[in-house]
Amino acid sequence: MACTAPKRVCIVGSGNWGSAIAKIVGSNALRQKHIDDRVTMYVYEEMINGKKLTEIINEQHENVKYLPGHKLPPNVVAVPDVVDAAKDADILIFVIPHQFIRTLCSTLLGKIKPTAIALSLIKGFDRAEGGGIDLISHIITRHLKIPCAVLMGANLANEVADEKFCETTIGCKDVRNGPLLRDIIQTDYFRVVVVDDEDTVEVCGALKNIVACGAGFVDGLGLGDNTKAAVIRLGLMEMVKFVDVFYPGGKLSTFFESCGVADLITTCYGGRNRKVSEAYVKTGKSIKELEDEMLNGQKLQGPFTAEEVNYMLKNRGMEDKFPLFTAIHRICTGQLRPAGFIDCIRNHPEHIYIPKHISF
Amino acid sequence: MACTAPKRVCIVGSGNWGSAIAKIVGSNALRQKHIDDRVTMYVYEEMINGKKLTEIINEQHENVKYLPGHKLPPNVVAVPDVVDAAKDADILIFVIPHQFIRTLCSTLLGKIKPTAIALSLIKGFDRAEGGGIDLISHIITRHLKIPCAVLMGANLANEVADEKFCETTIGCKDVRNGPLLRDIIQTDYFRVVVVDDEDTVEVCGALKNIVACGAGFVDGLGLGDNTKAAVIRLGLMEMVKFVDVFYPGGKLSTFFESCGVADLITTCYGGRNRKVSEAYVKTGKSIKELEDEMLNGQKLQGPFTAEEVNYMLKNRGMEDKFPLFTAIHRICTGQLRPAGFIDCIRNHPEHIYIPKHISF
Repeated sequence: MACTAPKRVCIVGSGNWGSAIAKIVGSNALRQKHIDDRVTMYVYEEMINGKKLTEIINEQHENVKYLPGHKLPPNVVAVPDVVDAAKDADILIFVIPHQFIRTLCSTLLGKIKPTAIALSLIKGFDRAEGGGIDLISHIITRHLKIPCAVLMGANLANEVADEKFCETTIGCKDVRNGPLLRDIIQTDYFRVVVVDDEDTVEVCGALKNIVACGAGFVDGLGLGDNTKAAVIRLGLMEMVKFVDVFYPGGKLSTFFESCGVADLITTCYGGRNRKVSEAYVKTGKSIKELEDEMLNGQKLQGPFTAEEVNYMLKNRGMEDKFPLFTAIHRICTGQLRPAGFIDCIRNHPEHIYIPKHISF
Repeated sequence: MACTAPKRVCIVGSGNWGSAIAKIVGSNALRQKHIDDRVTMYVYEEMINGKKLTEIINEQHENVKYLPGHKLPPNVVAVPDVVDAAKDADILIFVIPHQFIRTLCSTLLGKIKPTAIALSLIKGFDRAEGGGIDLISHIITRHLKIPCAVLMGANLANEVADEKFCETTIGCKDVRNGPLLRDIIQTDYFRVVVVDDEDTVEVCGALKNIVACGAGFVDGLGLGDNTKAAVIRLGLMEMVKFVDVFYPGGKLSTFFESCGVADLITTCYGGRNRKVSEAYVKTGKSIKELEDEMLNGQKLQGPFTAEEVNYMLKNRGMEDKFPLFTAIHRICTGQLRPAGFIDCIRNHPEHIYIPKHISF
């Protein structure tokens, strides 16, 4: 009986991306027998014009604050208490800002089904104790003792909510869970490819922001299309090498998925890391000043990730093996002038003559 | 003695890209002992304000017609007769429009050193007799009985001439020739990676133009960043599959080189295939009309390549395995309305659940 009962889904988070995903998951739940109709969504309660956001969502079926203009299916139920929202769920979809994940896990510990599985949509690394990187999915698994898959891709939330065609990547080690997660997420406009290379998928989602800073520097320096393409490609090569060194067992093919090249491209042509980095070169202001001016004080992911990555590279004595990541970190922290960027990558390890031998 | 004599280089062609390369090769020849100082450049003679172009180049050291504003090194010598230019060369660098290659090979046959090697910078396929594709490097090798390497990458000629940092890929099967070709081409702003996967490098340089048409359709349809990234990625996947089917033995890693992702990105964001394809959707005019209006009647590579590729796919009964290439061909030829583009790729073979197993 238990294994054929419809699976219950809880979406932990209700920002822009969380709400766009809720729209998809809610509509898939209605269409598919093996997913329970009722989808709970944990909403951090706030008052909007004197009314609770959860009430607005449950009455108007719209997250008027974070995804205005898009109706959510009525079977998506906003719940202000995260334990209430999550306690009966078989699948927990985490989509909150990454700095809240540890506290949230503490709150949920022991209150969820022990058989539940998680799917993290959270982009960016967390800082490990003592420095370096902790993957969000690893934190979830470690704290909640449940497996955690990840979803990353070239997925601007508003375009997904507009039902514009795109792709995404689910990284899921356990092949039994892959098809279920795909069924919950996939629609005819939101196409899912499942790979078993979980860590690589998640690492791509964080490292791309470093590369986007480099792309922004190129734009700020007015260096043109060739140089930008070279920086993006060298960034991709360092992403591959980073996975190879720190998360061995990854697959080259994963970088061809939406979480890899596709997300990297959109982030390096659109996206705020690129934009702020361009302004950094052109204005001479500090990253902090630009965060205040351009992002209402929100922290820019790229420079933060570059710092954590640099900590790991320095510890291993590998800064010179990752000259692009290293130069970007040094520029963001004012140790190197932006004009010195290209000189750091002219003799990139990629340019040393080694015939390549990875076959199809 | 013979093997230690400095190598003589001839550049066969003097357009925008040929002249930019001549600037590099000329300056490398002066700096390197094992390359002869004198670099010949075959120039198709034309009169510019009553004066021969070869004379202008040899006196002013500038190709005023095709690369104005950039001085060529004085050791680059313009020669109006291709046999004169090529007869003593050890390395022949071909950089002419692809439609002239067969005639040119006929002219050179028996007139060049039998020990010469070729490097083709020519992008685009030639039409095989009876339809389908002939690689330019294969034509050169077949007609002239000499090995032919290829050079492709994200290399807009004017930016290269401006000495803006970029990368390129040389595909060279014979590992003994790779270092020599790299020495002729590489500078501190034009970085070379040599791979032995010749055919893949050349195929990338042609197929990217098909994908760029798809990117242009997305722009014309106003579908946004997610969709564009998905189309570029699916295009890349079809490029990989095309090589796998028609040029087996290729390497996945080659697609990560400048000739692969980097050139694809610049072509899909800049470039005339993208631009004309966007206009095709927005204006409803035919490709032919737009070629006349936007390109002074020059033929657009993407639709032409899409047609040749479609011929090969149809012959093999494989159109449905390449839905993106197929849809682009059908749209360019008016068999499908642009608005139907996305419906052709919603159920792309890439979206069928197959765990990926290509390892590092």
